Amino acid sequence: MSRQSEGRTVAELAALVGGRAAGDAGARVFGVASIEAAGAGDVVFVEDEKLLEAARACAASCVIAPEGAAARLVGARSVIEAARPKLAFALVAEVLNPPRRRGAFVHPSATVAPGAQVGGGVYVGACAFVGEGAEVGEGTQILAGAFVGERVRVGRGCVLHPNVVLYDGVEIGDRVVLHACVVVGADGFGYVRDEAGVYHKFPQVGTVRIEDDVEIGANTCVDRAALGVTRVGRGTKIDNLVQVGHNVEIGERVVIAAQTGISGSTVIESDAVIGGQVGFGDHARVLAGAVIGSQAGVLPGKIVRPGVWWGTPVQPLEEYKRLNALWGRLPRMREEIAELKRQVRELTSRLGEKAD
Amino acid sequence: MSRQSEGRTVAELAALVGGRAAGDAGARVFGVASIEAAGAGDVVFVEDEKLLEAARACAASCVIAPEGAAARLVGARSVIEAARPKLAFALVAEVLNPPRRRGAFVHPSATVAPGAQVGGGVYVGACAFVGEGAEVGEGTQILAGAFVGERVRVGRGCVLHPNVVLYDGVEIGDRVVLHACVVVGADGFGYVRDEAGVYHKFPQVGTVRIEDDVEIGANTCVDRAALGVTRVGRGTKIDNLVQVGHNVEIGERVVIAAQTGISGSTVIESDAVIGGQVGFGDHARVLAGAVIGSQAGVLPGKIVRPGVWWGTPVQPLEEYKRLNALWGRLPRMREEIAELKRQVRELTSRLGEKAD
Amino acid sequence: MSRQSEGRTVAELAALVGGRAAGDAGARVFGVASIEAAGAGDVVFVEDEKLLEAARACAASCVIAPEGAAARLVGARSVIEAARPKLAFALVAEVLNPPRRRGAFVHPSATVAPGAQVGGGVYVGACAFVGEGAEVGEGTQILAGAFVGERVRVGRGCVLHPNVVLYDGVEIGDRVVLHACVVVGADGFGYVRDEAGVYHKFPQVGTVRIEDDVEIGANTCVDRAALGVTRVGRGTKIDNLVQVGHNVEIGERVVIAAQTGISGSTVIESDAVIGGQVGFGDHARVLAGAVIGSQAGVLPGKIVRPGVWWGTPVQPLEEYKRLNALWGRLPRMREEIAELKRQVRELTSRLGEKAD
Repeated sequence: MSRQSEGRTVAELAALVGGRAAGDAGARVFGVASIEAAGAGDVVFVEDEKLLEAARACAASCVIAPEGAAARLVGARSVIEAARPKLAFALVAEVLNPPRRRGAFVHPSATVAPGAQVGGGVYVGACAFVGEGAEVGEGTQILAGAFVGERVRVGRGCVLHPNVVLYDGVEIGDRVVLHACVVVGADGFGYVRDEAGVYHKFPQVGTVRIEDDVEIGANTCVDRAALGVTRVGRGTKIDNLVQVGHNVEIGERVVIAAQTGISGSTVIESDAVIGGQVGFGDHARVLAGAVIGSQAGVLPGKIVRPGVWWGTPVQPLEEYKRLNALWGRLPRMREEIAELKRQVRELTSRLGEKAD
Repeated sequence: MSRQSEGRTVAELAALVGGRAAGDAGARVFGVASIEAAGAGDVVFVEDEKLLEAARACAASCVIAPEGAAARLVGARSVIEAARPKLAFALVAEVLNPPRRRGAFVHPSATVAPGAQVGGGVYVGACAFVGEGAEVGEGTQILAGAFVGERVRVGRGCVLHPNVVLYDGVEIGDRVVLHACVVVGADGFGYVRDEAGVYHKFPQVGTVRIEDDVEIGANTCVDRAALGVTRVGRGTKIDNLVQVGHNVEIGERVVIAAQTGISGSTVIESDAVIGGQVGFGDHARVLAGAVIGSQAGVLPGKIVRPGVWWGTPVQPLEEYKRLNALWGRLPRMREEIAELKRQVRELTSRLGEKAD
Repeated sequence: MSRQSEGRTVAELAALVGGRAAGDAGARVFGVASIEAAGAGDVVFVEDEKLLEAARACAASCVIAPEGAAARLVGARSVIEAARPKLAFALVAEVLNPPRRRGAFVHPSATVAPGAQVGGGVYVGACAFVGEGAEVGEGTQILAGAFVGERVRVGRGCVLHPNVVLYDGVEIGDRVVLHACVVVGADGFGYVRDEAGVYHKFPQVGTVRIEDDVEIGANTCVDRAALGVTRVGRGTKIDNLVQVGHNVEIGERVVIAAQTGISGSTVIESDAVIGGQVGFGDHARVLAGAVIGSQAGVLPGKIVRPGVWWGTPVQPLEEYKRLNALWGRLPRMREEIAELKRQVRELTSRLGEKAD
């Protein structure tokens, strides 16, 4: 992975992350790597004390390490000491391995409606589509096959990966990344049944608003609101194959892992962390800062307070652990009950004898 | 959301829904809205007694309300009294906010095979594809990037949203709506292992038949049958990211929420209601009218009778609730057993003393 | 389904599967079918003793049956006796109903970058895209709308179904089948949070390697590694809507059913069988040959040994069954405890009386 950039000096990177350079601060590094695969020109990080030896032995030109660890690492290489090496490594990667920027371009096979407003430096890939009345901000990249419906607003510096679909009228902020086959703005799932048993669509005529700096994983769906707005707040990160129902409100800096499903009108407040394959009934509310473990189930209308939650129906992790341990003790409990019954029978019989 | 149609009078809408108009029956309304967002020209609905005051205070031109509620709502506005306001609202929305109809059109970047038969008024969007021998009924809309394989039959008045994929030979009825990236007719998941451990594909050469008035959510997959037909019955509604395996039979007017998975050859009879993230083993059968709660697990071969079912393995809701309550009482039961053991020990010891 | 091939004689097919022909070994068959739908020219199989009568009565020209069953089946038809009729049927279908092979072709609406290397006999469908520096092996079929990013390597004889997306740089082996809307190489889901609560992307600059003879179902996602490689081993079969996280290692001949999710860095060794909707925490390891039931949950770091596993957290099937049976007995246990308390109270009271 080396040489994907013109590189930076160790001193520059140390300054960037607020760290301290040791060894040859003028050495130039070009890309990030794992300890196992690193070669000359690479920077790696080590956070775990147990991996210090492996880091020392690896071929990287620079190691980002915990404060105080430089002495044990420097040799033929440079070291950057940082309070949080993994965070420093992520910040360094933003500079050395930045996401690819495609320049201003419209592929001849793409369709951009005459009434669409496309900003400067926008890339429109092969067979991509930008509909009538859409607005696409400066520097945004719409990759091959992506579909931007009519009156959609996409901000600046976004990346729509191949085959993303934005239904008519949805709004996307700045620097939003939508991975392949993400679908934003499909109809929410709401019907009303008549006397004959036929389902009529409850109107799904609202919209979706995805705020700045959101990233959404491949094949995830965010449905439009029935009436009103489905919202994904600034800085929130959503993994692949997630379902976000109509009128859901997701706050800022929320993290949601793969395959989780969120039913209609549920609210997930800012800074919540949601595991994978979690299911939310409708009209639930997750309060700011709550953490919900994978595969948990949140019943409709449930309020999930701050803390760590687990299981179905969701309960505090400590409670879950306690009950789960007892679950394993059920056979023992059953034996104890049988033994007690035997003893009580014997006592009763002995007492009966005495009474005679 | 106002003015998306030429509008209707309150009297017309009241007749449409079999309701009673109160106030200015000649007033014109143009679109549906929520109570919070409604403005002049909008119609809203209220069903819950607690929301009557909010409905009275809102700016809508017309409120659809329960029978007998008109007197408390009329003022500057009109009211339609209806036996089921939410259903009436859905029916009104079908008229005021109808789904968009794109007229006859074939985009120059689309491909329509010479041997495809395309009916009148069909819309074929940018980069859409209609294969050799396919038949597409009158008024159907094939949006950008959608793929209609060879010998596919699509009925009249359907909407295939962007990037839908219909594999060769599948059959789609009339007025079917398939949301973005729906995949119909991919190979079912069936293999036979040989002595060397290699998996050979069990033939997946059947087809899929989706009947009239079905709607299927974004990124949902309906696999072709191994031999025979995978079927989705008339009027059934399926949410996003659902998996329908090979040879599954889904009846009419079934509702299936997001991320549910149905294994091969399972049968879901008409009028069943299935929650989200439910898992079905193969060859299970859900009888007509059964309701299965979210995240439930149905074992292979299981027959689910009418009633409400919950949990894994699936059980009647009442049973599940009773057991789940006991689950929370396990710590208490454990303490009770410990206390009983102590008491029995003491009794035994006292009886022993007496025996001396 | 008859006549989809020029056909083979019963003798040829018997030789192919190592079986024994009975009846007219020169009879010609053209396609596979189910017992219910078979007509003249079709071959069916029967494995279950209970279905022998139905097989005897059906209209197929040839029945593949267990050893020793020919005498009960021959009449107007031919029989092939085989040790494993279902396997023999699959092998016969590979010959009679082979997957469709499209010849060398590049659709005028497709884009093949000048620097892409495309082998002989490659099919590139409408609006498909092959990026700069990509290599596509002989006989591979890239169907409409599929996207092959820059520097991607695709082997020989592969099929990329419509709208598949291969991000830049991923590697696909020979004879790999990727169903519609599969996404390979999207960024893994990894972030590091800074003091202000902002999430920074942990670099996702590794790649994906999918080995020979893998088949992956529609809408499944295989994320690129953070650093290093996400790998899917030779002959592995993955169903629809599965999530394979960054740096996951899947061995050879693994089977994974629909909607399962595998978190980062988890290892699934060769010959494992994984049910549907299973969730894996990160850094778990499934040892060779383990079988995990549907909807199971595997905690982070867990090692799953050979055997059959079930439930959340995952446990040996026998253990799960035992505990699950007790779960149903909880009400009974609770009553027994109450009864014991009553009896002990009575004993205590009687003993007290005696003590007086």
